[in-house]
Amino acid sequence: MRQSVISVALPDQSYNIAIVPNGFDQLGNWVIVQAEGVNLGRQILLVSNPAIFKLYGDRVVASLTKVGFIVAVHLIPAGEQHKTLASVQKIYDSALKHRLERSSTMVALGGGVVGDMTGFAASTWLRGINFVQVPTSLLAMVDASIGGKTGVNHPKGKNLIGAFHQPRLVFIDPLVLQTLPRREFRAGMAEVIKYGVIGSPGFFEQMEAAEKLSDVQSIAPELLESIVVQSCQAKADVVSQDEKEAGLRAILNYGHTIGHAVESLGNYQDLNHGEAVAVGMVAAGRIAAGMGLWDQENCDRQEALITKAGLPVTLPVVDHGGIVTALLSDKKVKAGKVRFVLPTAIGAVVIRDDVPENLLRSVLAELGESLE
Amino acid sequence: MRQSVISVALPDQSYNIAIVPNGFDQLGNWVIVQAEGVNLGRQILLVSNPAIFKLYGDRVVASLTKVGFIVAVHLIPAGEQHKTLASVQKIYDSALKHRLERSSTMVALGGGVVGDMTGFAASTWLRGINFVQVPTSLLAMVDASIGGKTGVNHPKGKNLIGAFHQPRLVFIDPLVLQTLPRREFRAGMAEVIKYGVIGSPGFFEQMEAAEKLSDVQSIAPELLESIVVQSCQAKADVVSQDEKEAGLRAILNYGHTIGHAVESLGNYQDLNHGEAVAVGMVAAGRIAAGMGLWDQENCDRQEALITKAGLPVTLPVVDHGGIVTALLSDKKVKAGKVRFVLPTAIGAVVIRDDVPENLLRSVLAELGESLE
Repeated sequence: MRQSVISVALPDQSYNIAIVPNGFDQLGNWVIVQAEGVNLGRQILLVSNPAIFKLYGDRVVASLTKVGFIVAVHLIPAGEQHKTLASVQKIYDSALKHRLERSSTMVALGGGVVGDMTGFAASTWLRGINFVQVPTSLLAMVDASIGGKTGVNHPKGKNLIGAFHQPRLVFIDPLVLQTLPRREFRAGMAEVIKYGVIGSPGFFEQMEAAEKLSDVQSIAPELLESIVVQSCQAKADVVSQDEKEAGLRAILNYGHTIGHAVESLGNYQDLNHGEAVAVGMVAAGRIAAGMGLWDQENCDRQEALITKAGLPVTLPVVDHGGIVTALLSDKKVKAGKVRFVLPTAIGAVVIRDDVPENLLRSVLAELGESLE
Repeated sequence: MRQSVISVALPDQSYNIAIVPNGFDQLGNWVIVQAEGVNLGRQILLVSNPAIFKLYGDRVVASLTKVGFIVAVHLIPAGEQHKTLASVQKIYDSALKHRLERSSTMVALGGGVVGDMTGFAASTWLRGINFVQVPTSLLAMVDASIGGKTGVNHPKGKNLIGAFHQPRLVFIDPLVLQTLPRREFRAGMAEVIKYGVIGSPGFFEQMEAAEKLSDVQSIAPELLESIVVQSCQAKADVVSQDEKEAGLRAILNYGHTIGHAVESLGNYQDLNHGEAVAVGMVAAGRIAAGMGLWDQENCDRQEALITKAGLPVTLPVVDHGGIVTALLSDKKVKAGKVRFVLPTAIGAVVIRDDVPENLLRSVLAELGESLE
């Protein structure tokens, strides 16, 4: 299978996403090649969680050691509930113990939680050291690992504490997805479908044409790789044009406005992030149709593709009024107005802050009954 | 008295240092003017400590409120021992409570501890919000508030956790220095003298010519203002050329290499930061003389000026071997080599990593007896 290299071009620091099937044995060499011109030092702190490290840790450590790095390992328990400042403090302790210098590197091997926390620790240790992402979940590969967003949760809200810190390299082996739990794979597919809707009609059609999408085992390795490559390319294109979310990057929040509210109301238990985004896209699509921005046919195509990927198109029983309140406390709220990303075609979106509250409420009512 | 505006020109975000004698009543207007083109939102979180807030809080809050800001106040206890991640976490809690948005602003009113922590909180809340520095100590005015270094201490080392985050405005009333405790004022003078040695022979001579330098009360307001303006200009010039400490900015560490080691060995109790820097400059000067880089006359002039400012030129009784060990664990160490900033003239320095260990030890022996 082919290798792909996608460039993320940024004013201060450009870097590549390398997609290398069955590539962990080559990670060390890729790090050396990709960091050309950067003094990487010798010390690496590899951060992972026990389950992922058990699967891939030996190969990754061996690959890094072979090219001359000294690798220390820091494991954090799996799960969003550990994405806290307290966990980052333990990474700092390891960084001190292993004498990481300004030229040293932290490598994140794992899903979004590991990547977000390791990136934040790398961003704030000695005011910023080198950082390499080795994402192992679909969600982390196509979304979290690209773009430099790092951070942890505040007890009262997700990702409220964080920093922008770009990696030196994102290294992806798409074949590791074959061991990903089914529900986690599907969660990543929500972001994948998002890229189709916001900017890639051809990619959307490719997924529509696939025989099956809901199980990674029934997706051909070539299609799986293509899904990862096209999604990474889509994210890289947007991030390259708008590193700090000043404008364009906001379109990546498609499906996330209502998605976040649903997620937080369910206390992150009922729906995972990808499932919430899936329902959020359904809601945004219907709002767009209700405002006359999108035609019903495309709205239906989106819902069919989401269903095909094994993702939900309806809400669990939640407090609809609570969703509206939660929207107003979202960190992206500007001067009290809620901004929605709404599709106008398969492959095009607009940003609007004038969604009528009664339309929002009626769409929520269509998607599921309220606790009220 | 005149007002001065010094520009810090950076690729991504330029900003001004406004030096306005007796100016706190005008702070609100300055914030509005200086943030032209930036959406500042309406919510401000003012961070200070109880003693400083008691002196200036009412004027500052009134000035900000008058121009339309909603001001919430967060007080943190004074002292370096509170410059921790736990204190920052409390600032986050206030930020959440007062619903700070991405366009909101944190204002730091106080010395270096308040500024460093508030800056770090502003840098990491919602991945970075607006930040205004209102330094009230000489050290904070001429050093800490300029350049975007923010951070907190790790239990095992100062400033190990941090980020670069540039303020929108640094606003200084030099007259507040007249109420600064004598020892704190002198500590700031160490950095002021540093600017003379590393790049401003005229400024150095101006201080040599001053009648007195050791007490703020015996310094004419015009000279005091000139000291602040020239020091800010010196720091701004260096920072503008090297935002992220890639090269030139390292010269600002003059006196800090040994200074940091002395400070940390004394557990930050024996000498404060400025006093340690003063002794560090004396040591660096003698090392430079010992290596034939600097002539003895200038070495003596530097020590005379440091003495005139009421600062120490000798070490307290400390473990000299411990200083050497501490130097090797400094966060600026690259691949095990200690880099010293050494003067070659009044107004010029070079960076060297080849200081002979026996010269270092003999200079330490000259400066005071060892615990060993």
